Amino acid sequence: MHNLHLALIHHPVLNKNGRTITSAVTNLDLHDISRLARTYGVGSFSVVTPLLDQRQLVGNLIGHWTRGAGATYNPKRKQALEAIAVRETLEEVITGLSAGIAATAGPVTVATSARRHDRSIGHDRLRQMLRDSENRPWVLMFGTAWGLADSVLEQADYILAPIRGHADYNHLSVRSAAAIILDRLTHNDPLP
Amino acid sequence: MHNLHLALIHHPVLNKNGRTITSAVTNLDLHDISRLARTYGVGSFSVVTPLLDQRQLVGNLIGHWTRGAGATYNPKRKQALEAIAVRETLEEVITGLSAGIAATAGPVTVATSARRHDRSIGHDRLRQMLRDSENRPWVLMFGTAWGLADSVLEQADYILAPIRGHADYNHLSVRSAAAIILDRLTHNDPLP
Repeated sequence: MHNLHLALIHHPVLNKNGRTITSAVTNLDLHDISRLARTYGVGSFSVVTPLLDQRQLVGNLIGHWTRGAGATYNPKRKQALEAIAVRETLEEVITGLSAGIAATAGPVTVATSARRHDRSIGHDRLRQMLRDSENRPWVLMFGTAWGLADSVLEQADYILAPIRGHADYNHLSVRSAAAIILDRLTHNDPLP
Repeated sequence: MHNLHLALIHHPVLNKNGRTITSAVTNLDLHDISRLARTYGVGSFSVVTPLLDQRQLVGNLIGHWTRGAGATYNPKRKQALEAIAVRETLEEVITGLSAGIAATAGPVTVATSARRHDRSIGHDRLRQMLRDSENRPWVLMFGTAWGLADSVLEQADYILAPIRGHADYNHLSVRSAAAIILDRLTHNDPLP
């Protein structure tokens, strides 16, 4: 899954009242999603926030686990967290992935959402597209707080269908959603 | 998935040196896994710890979100957390599920593990068994810290195979593992 790149977005996202905000970074998002990213061998994991102090905070956290006392205490955590890239905007993520690539082979963006949209596509279809265009970078965008703002959804090349269980409840954490989606996009069950 | 019951175990589990310990409860485990449990419509979610102060702490957290200020702030969180059962031991979970059931139809226990064991079974097989015996309660056990102690694995009726991605790294949080496993046991992809 080296052509799949994760972006955890803190702006623009929605608050519970549907207003566009910048959310605060949650430490455990970085731990859980970086470990996922490493387990599933994705190309990169970017944490996106326009707030300088939040980017510094993420930098300090990464420093603790990759160079500080944490690196000795838990080397597996180091391996995961050292792969995090800190970015100011989604455009910066995309520009970074576009370097040295022809415009026609540039990044394809996929927004995740807890709601179903007219143009939502299924996980199996995305999985197939990822395999069919292995040479293009794909950016899978996750919204924090109450999800990605409409502007991100509208500009995305694709919107992934929500995860639904079998109950009338669909309020997973972004950590859980990222885990399930990555697994659906890559899962093989080798044991009988 | 009403016949599937989740148990998050804080004793006996391993520390990073392989010693058996009692781990501390992590708030975000309760939030994430209760929301998962609700989304996938499982029968119950038990948090298991022998420590009285930890059980009280869990009770306070649940109270905040189900009766306190949190219940008004976020009713969806209330719906998830109010379904948590707090238990002292795994035996207590099993006894509770055995009430009024013939011994031959009593709970079946399944341990999760990040390591592969000789008798590990695949997710597809467990999924099929869950469907084939809908009238029996199945208890899926998750270990916190560095995983379930050997005694729990040995006494379990089944051990579920580890989740593996495509990289040489297998260190997911229990939150991520629970999300992926529940999805694998129940997932249908309705969209083309």
